[in-house]
Amino acid sequence: MPNDPLPVTGAWCPGDEPGCRRFHTFATEHPFAVESGAVLRDVVIAYETWGELNSDASNAILVCHAWTGDSHAAGRAGPGHPTPGWWDDCIGPGKHIDTNRWFVVCANVLGGCQGSTGPASPHPDDGLPYGSRFPVLTIRDMVRHQRRMMNHLGIERWRSVIGGSMGGMQVLEWAITYPERVGSIVPIASCMQSSAQQIAWGVIGRRAIRLDPRWRGGDYYGADPGDGPAEGLAIARQVAQVTFRSDNAFTDRFGRELTDRAQMGDTFGLWQEFEVERYLHYHGDKLVRRFDANSYLVIGKAMDLHDVARSRGSLESAMGRIRVPNLTIGINSDILYPPYQQRQMSRLLSRTGLPSTYIEIDSPHGHDAFLIHFDLVGEPIAKFLAAVG
Amino acid sequence: MPNDPLPVTGAWCPGDEPGCRRFHTFATEHPFAVESGAVLRDVVIAYETWGELNSDASNAILVCHAWTGDSHAAGRAGPGHPTPGWWDDCIGPGKHIDTNRWFVVCANVLGGCQGSTGPASPHPDDGLPYGSRFPVLTIRDMVRHQRRMMNHLGIERWRSVIGGSMGGMQVLEWAITYPERVGSIVPIASCMQSSAQQIAWGVIGRRAIRLDPRWRGGDYYGADPGDGPAEGLAIARQVAQVTFRSDNAFTDRFGRELTDRAQMGDTFGLWQEFEVERYLHYHGDKLVRRFDANSYLVIGKAMDLHDVARSRGSLESAMGRIRVPNLTIGINSDILYPPYQQRQMSRLLSRTGLPSTYIEIDSPHGHDAFLIHFDLVGEPIAKFLAAVG
Repeated sequence: MPNDPLPVTGAWCPGDEPGCRRFHTFATEHPFAVESGAVLRDVVIAYETWGELNSDASNAILVCHAWTGDSHAAGRAGPGHPTPGWWDDCIGPGKHIDTNRWFVVCANVLGGCQGSTGPASPHPDDGLPYGSRFPVLTIRDMVRHQRRMMNHLGIERWRSVIGGSMGGMQVLEWAITYPERVGSIVPIASCMQSSAQQIAWGVIGRRAIRLDPRWRGGDYYGADPGDGPAEGLAIARQVAQVTFRSDNAFTDRFGRELTDRAQMGDTFGLWQEFEVERYLHYHGDKLVRRFDANSYLVIGKAMDLHDVARSRGSLESAMGRIRVPNLTIGINSDILYPPYQQRQMSRLLSRTGLPSTYIEIDSPHGHDAFLIHFDLVGEPIAKFLAAVG
Repeated sequence: MPNDPLPVTGAWCPGDEPGCRRFHTFATEHPFAVESGAVLRDVVIAYETWGELNSDASNAILVCHAWTGDSHAAGRAGPGHPTPGWWDDCIGPGKHIDTNRWFVVCANVLGGCQGSTGPASPHPDDGLPYGSRFPVLTIRDMVRHQRRMMNHLGIERWRSVIGGSMGGMQVLEWAITYPERVGSIVPIASCMQSSAQQIAWGVIGRRAIRLDPRWRGGDYYGADPGDGPAEGLAIARQVAQVTFRSDNAFTDRFGRELTDRAQMGDTFGLWQEFEVERYLHYHGDKLVRRFDANSYLVIGKAMDLHDVARSRGSLESAMGRIRVPNLTIGINSDILYPPYQQRQMSRLLSRTGLPSTYIEIDSPHGHDAFLIHFDLVGEPIAKFLAAVG
């Protein structure tokens, strides 16, 4: 781990060589006090941009990523980016969010592990990873972190702030915290405050990570590669993965099929695998290879703490601060952020009297539909941007 | 652990004194081959009865319990029974399942830990708990196990077989496997075959138990009391507990409230507790005190393997073997066994041309409603029993 108080390369991530990530970073020595009261120093912000900022910096759009996303919202796979951008079909020249017209920015969230300061980053005091020393964060902390980047980029006002799931939480906090710096918003499959059921799923995942003896109370970075809390993180991810999809989608895709291996022999073994099991293992293992367990904990907790009403009286008074055109998108099969939450949100947003639209996507794929049906999400966004542009 | 090849007391359960359970047991030396091919010897069946068997043994009703249930379907709490019967409001003199008229029987399932042979029972070879030596079971094995008890009791035909959740799986298997010995059926909040999503939840719970280092590959019985896989079992139970309830019920009951402890101080701690979290911990810890982790694994796997069509061609041909009056009950807010599964089941049952009724309970409580709204479940059952009686 480099003993550099101002690292400008990506934070540690399982399997990564330091510095292999391709994005801009920006570090500041101004202390950064988070909502819990802790103070972070030398905070790094990793971000990517697409398109050109125009002369009056009036064409900038901020895209906010979800739980295990990162700044690579668009662009190809390649060194430092094992996969194409998570919204590559939506963002680019001539695409729904057209980078011939818009300057698009996406930052890795504070607490993440893809370049921005997170639990795996070196602590400025000793250059060793924060680990258990990393504070609990809130969505508001993530947004304030992004505002530093905004100032750094010389942007006064986002034309729009867009995001799904946890990205949508950031969208709301942006518009409420900095109303003068946001021109319009598009929250997707998100909520104004996490529900008890959403919190319950989060809690279970965190307990699974904590149960893994390799988590070591959060200080596992000195362990040999591969000796981190992989199984705990995989289980936590599997809980999330089921809630990201839907009963119908699982039935259509997997039914009750056994894997080839199970069909060959041990049909009645306790660990014999159904196809859906292999799918869950695949997704769990895939995340383990690209994501840090402590980041998963910290970001998940931030989502559970998400409540736009905190210290603002009520949902109504908090949402009442938003006075910009808005497009809310829900997904009819979403069991994690059910459409009723999007409708509640849109109802409060429509009180502004400003253009306010609610669209419900018809998809069998559940919450993840906004990362699958690019056209169903992208087209209304393109139309909305054209109207507010 | 007593070195008795034919134990007639309850199997080991956390915190139990051997022999403290109050129920009848019945052991047989006839080997019992399970569907996986393994053979169990000296199999014990623990059961309870209420009411009197009439002279021609024509008034017997079998009630089948769910995952972590046991034979104590009715009756008070007391020594050996820490809680009242799980359907005590439904079963008893003058109650919906009236024991002045019916002779009601409930057996602990094979693989369980409340008296019937399960992973914590002594292996006949060495008197030591089966542990990892216990075979994978199916719902059909449970039903064949119960049939031994039926023969032992001198009952030729159940007037009705009734059960919810996993109990409903047994109901279907009873009627399909032994059509001549079942007079009518009442499956509640159950399914004909476990869906991919149901399997997914099961898999996640099993992996959590396996992750617990105290599980010790299933051979933890020699460990000190309290040194079993309590945390893994608690997490597995928490996954189930969320699916047993509903989003609305959680929101109404817990919202985003923090526990008193969390409100006092550490609002932003990573392990700070929301009320829903305390509820989950409570239910996880409660199960740990009364249930054996290996039984949880084996019974959960049996549910995932549940498929009435296995080796019977198709759902239609399997269900077509059922030629008795039937009442199917679904719950409108059930996210684990959604009402569409009950409607599918009832549709296939109605093809018999015999009296076939589907009732959908209106409750916000999700899957567990059949253990909460005793009148909503009990009244249609009473009416059904009167009609078929």
